[in-house]
Amino acid sequence: MNAEIISVGTELLLGHTINTDASFVARELSAAGINLLYNCTVGDNPERLKDAVETAMHRSDILITTGGLGPTGDDLTKETVASCAGKKLVMDKTSMEHIEKYFAGRSLGETQKKQAMLPEGCTVFPNDIGTAPGCGFRAESGCLVAMLPGPPSELFPMLKKYAIPFLLKSTSQASIVSRMVHVFGLGEGYVAEQISDLCAKENPTCATYAKDGEMFVRVTARAESHEKAAAMCGPVVEGLKKRLGEFCYGVDVDSLEETVVHLLAKKCLTVATAESCTGGLLAKRITDIPGSSSVFHMGAVTYSNDVKMQLLGVPEDVLARYGAVSPQVAKFMAQGIRRRSGADFGIGITGLAGPDGGTPEKPVGLVYIALSDCNDIWVREMHRSGCSKGRSYIRFLAASNALDMIRRRVLNLGGMENAAYSREKS
Amino acid sequence: MNAEIISVGTELLLGHTINTDASFVARELSAAGINLLYNCTVGDNPERLKDAVETAMHRSDILITTGGLGPTGDDLTKETVASCAGKKLVMDKTSMEHIEKYFAGRSLGETQKKQAMLPEGCTVFPNDIGTAPGCGFRAESGCLVAMLPGPPSELFPMLKKYAIPFLLKSTSQASIVSRMVHVFGLGEGYVAEQISDLCAKENPTCATYAKDGEMFVRVTARAESHEKAAAMCGPVVEGLKKRLGEFCYGVDVDSLEETVVHLLAKKCLTVATAESCTGGLLAKRITDIPGSSSVFHMGAVTYSNDVKMQLLGVPEDVLARYGAVSPQVAKFMAQGIRRRSGADFGIGITGLAGPDGGTPEKPVGLVYIALSDCNDIWVREMHRSGCSKGRSYIRFLAASNALDMIRRRVLNLGGMENAAYSREKS
Repeated sequence: MNAEIISVGTELLLGHTINTDASFVARELSAAGINLLYNCTVGDNPERLKDAVETAMHRSDILITTGGLGPTGDDLTKETVASCAGKKLVMDKTSMEHIEKYFAGRSLGETQKKQAMLPEGCTVFPNDIGTAPGCGFRAESGCLVAMLPGPPSELFPMLKKYAIPFLLKSTSQASIVSRMVHVFGLGEGYVAEQISDLCAKENPTCATYAKDGEMFVRVTARAESHEKAAAMCGPVVEGLKKRLGEFCYGVDVDSLEETVVHLLAKKCLTVATAESCTGGLLAKRITDIPGSSSVFHMGAVTYSNDVKMQLLGVPEDVLARYGAVSPQVAKFMAQGIRRRSGADFGIGITGLAGPDGGTPEKPVGLVYIALSDCNDIWVREMHRSGCSKGRSYIRFLAASNALDMIRRRVLNLGGMENAAYSREKS
Repeated sequence: MNAEIISVGTELLLGHTINTDASFVARELSAAGINLLYNCTVGDNPERLKDAVETAMHRSDILITTGGLGPTGDDLTKETVASCAGKKLVMDKTSMEHIEKYFAGRSLGETQKKQAMLPEGCTVFPNDIGTAPGCGFRAESGCLVAMLPGPPSELFPMLKKYAIPFLLKSTSQASIVSRMVHVFGLGEGYVAEQISDLCAKENPTCATYAKDGEMFVRVTARAESHEKAAAMCGPVVEGLKKRLGEFCYGVDVDSLEETVVHLLAKKCLTVATAESCTGGLLAKRITDIPGSSSVFHMGAVTYSNDVKMQLLGVPEDVLARYGAVSPQVAKFMAQGIRRRSGADFGIGITGLAGPDGGTPEKPVGLVYIALSDCNDIWVREMHRSGCSKGRSYIRFLAASNALDMIRRRVLNLGGMENAAYSREKS
C-alpha cells in the first residue's frame, strides 16, 4: 500500500506556515504500516491541484489531502478532488447540523454551509474541534482518498480517530499497534547497536530515532486483530525496557518533563530550581505540564553572582575561588534553593551556554547540574563543547539532564553523575 | 519565474523530521520575487527522485533541491539531478581542499571525498558550516537548478549568501530588497485595513502576516540595483512606522525579546521577573538572548501562595481577599521582585493558563501583568478565554505582553494598560 500526501495551501508555498501536518500524517501512516512515497505541496490553485491529484491517483494506492476544506473562496480541495474522482458533492445532514450548532446564535452564511457538501457515498470524519468535516472514499480509479482539514488542532485528532481506522479497514490491512519507548542518556548509535537483532526482525518491527537530545524506539506489530497486535508488542517492549534499563524513562509518554512531574506527584515530592545558564527553561518545562503546581512551588533564575549569594547563600569565597561555573557553585545553588523553598529536592544549574564567555579551561557547552536532597548532593558535568547546535540546544540539554537526575533520584536508580551520552562516549 | 522545491529524504516521509528547509526556502524565494508553485518530497530512492526531477525540469523555470548531498550511500541527489540535467560530475578542487581541511588529523574516506564531485561548469556554493558544498547551474533543458544540503544550519546561510544571489543573477532578475516591520499589540485584520492602500501597490509590495501573537509587514522592492531597491523601501518603511506608531517595535529585528534586551542594555537599565502562570517562560525568553546578563540578574518563579508571600512580600490578606489571580497580587509581585533584586523594573505575572482551574469570573486565559518602577506601577489585563490554542499560547502571549510593557516603559510610550489586540477588539 503506497500513499501520497497532497498539502494544499498558498501559505505553505509562501513559507509563512511550516508544514507540520505532513510530518504528523507521515508518522501516523508509518506507524500504521502504510508506505508514504510522495508529499506534494500546491497552492490554492484549481488547475495545479487537479494535475497533482490526477498524478497521485495514477501512481498511488492512497491519497491524503490536507487543507482547503474551509468556507472561504480559495478552499477548493473538495470540489477539485471530487471531480477528479468522478464523484458529485452532496449535502451531509449530520455535518450541516454540527455546523448549525457551532454557529448557534450567530449568522450562518452560505459559505459556511458549503463545508457540509461532501462526495456522495463517502465516510464522514466528524470535526470535533472546528466546523469543516473530513471524509474518506474510493475514487472511480480505485485510489482510496482521505481529505483532512488544514489546522493541526483539527487534523491531528481526526486523523487518529477516524482517518487511519478508515484506511486500515478499507484496505483490509491487518491491525497495527505501535508503542514508543523513550530513552534519555544514550546515543542513537549505541542503542541501535544494542538492539540490532530486534531492528532486523519483520514483525514486530523496531526503529530508532533521535530528537532534541533524546532517543526513541518505535515498536510496531501487525496482526489480524488489534488485541493480537498489542499482545505481540508487549514482550518486545518489555525486552527493550530490560536492555535499556534505567535509561528508559517511559513507554508511550509525552515527554521527560511530564514523566518527572507525574512521578513527583505520585510520590508526593516537590522540587525547586535555581538556574543560571538555563535562565528559567527548566522551570518553564516543568510548568508546561498541567498540574505541576502540586510538585513545584518555587524557582529562581539567579543570573548574577550577587543574586546567587543573596538569594541562595552561595559563599562569596566559593564564587571567587572556583568561579560561577563550577561544581561547587552548582552544589550551593541546589542546597540554597532547597532550604529556601522547603522542597524535597533542590536543583542548581550553572554553565556556559554561549555563544561568548568560553575559555580553554571552561569552554562554551560546559554545564554543572546539582541535585540536593536532605542527606546528599550530586553533581553532573555536561560537556557539549564544539556542538554546532548552539546556545538553545545546550540550554535544552542541560534542563533535560536536570529532569533525568530528578527521575533517577526519585526512583533511586543511581547514575546521578553520568551526563547524557557518557555511555556512548566512553 | 516559477520555482519548485524537491525535498529529498526518507526521514521526511517517515515524519521524523519536520520540513523546515522548505518553508525557509519558500520565504526567501517569496522575498526575492520568485513564485514557488510546487514543493515535492521524495525519499532516498533514485527512480522516484528521477521522476520528480524530470517533472520539475519540464514544468518549472527554477528547481531547488534540498538534502541528499552528504557522504552516505543514500545521498543520491547530485548523481540523479546531474544525469537528468545532462551534466557530468567532476571533482571540484576547492571543495576537496575544504573537506580535507575539515577532516585534518582524521582519516578521510572515499565517501567523504564524493562530496567534492559537482556538475561540470557549475557555480559552487561553499558550505561554511559543514562539508557538503551546494551548487547552481543551468540544465540542458534550460531549467535553472540549485542544490542545497539538508541540515538547516548549513542550508539557511548557504541559501541567503550564495543561492539567492545566483538565482537572481542567472535570471537577470532585478535586485530585490526586503524589509520586515515587526508589530505587537494589533491584529492582522486591523493592520491590513490600515495599510490596504500600500498592500495594493506593486513596487514596493507590502504583505502582512501573523505568527505567535505578533504581526509582520514585509516590504519588498525591485529595481535594477540593490541600492535603488533599498532606497525605494526606505520611505515605505518610514510610512509604516508612522502609521503603526508605538505598536511597531522594530524593523529587521530578530524578536521582541531581543529588541527589549538591547533597549535595556543601551539605556543601562535592568529588569527582574516574578512569574506565576508563565512559570519561567519570560525569564527564559529574556535569557535566550546572548548578553542578557547585563540587564537581567534575577527572576523568580513563584508558583505557590507561600512563596509569593515569603519571597516577594505579597500580603496574606491581599491573596485571601482578591485571590492569587488578581491585579492586586500582580502589583505586589512586581514591587516585591523589584525591591528584592534592586532592578530598575520589576515584572509580576499571575493568571490562569489552564487547562483547568478556570471559573466563570476568572476563566482560563485571564492573566494580569504588572510592571513596577521606582515611582509607578501599571497592570495590564489580558483575556484569551475561549482561545483554542491553549496553555502554551496563553503563556507565550502573557510573556510577550510583559516584554511589550518593558519596551513601552523604557521608551515612555504610554499604553501600558492596553493588552494585545485591545485595539482590534474595541
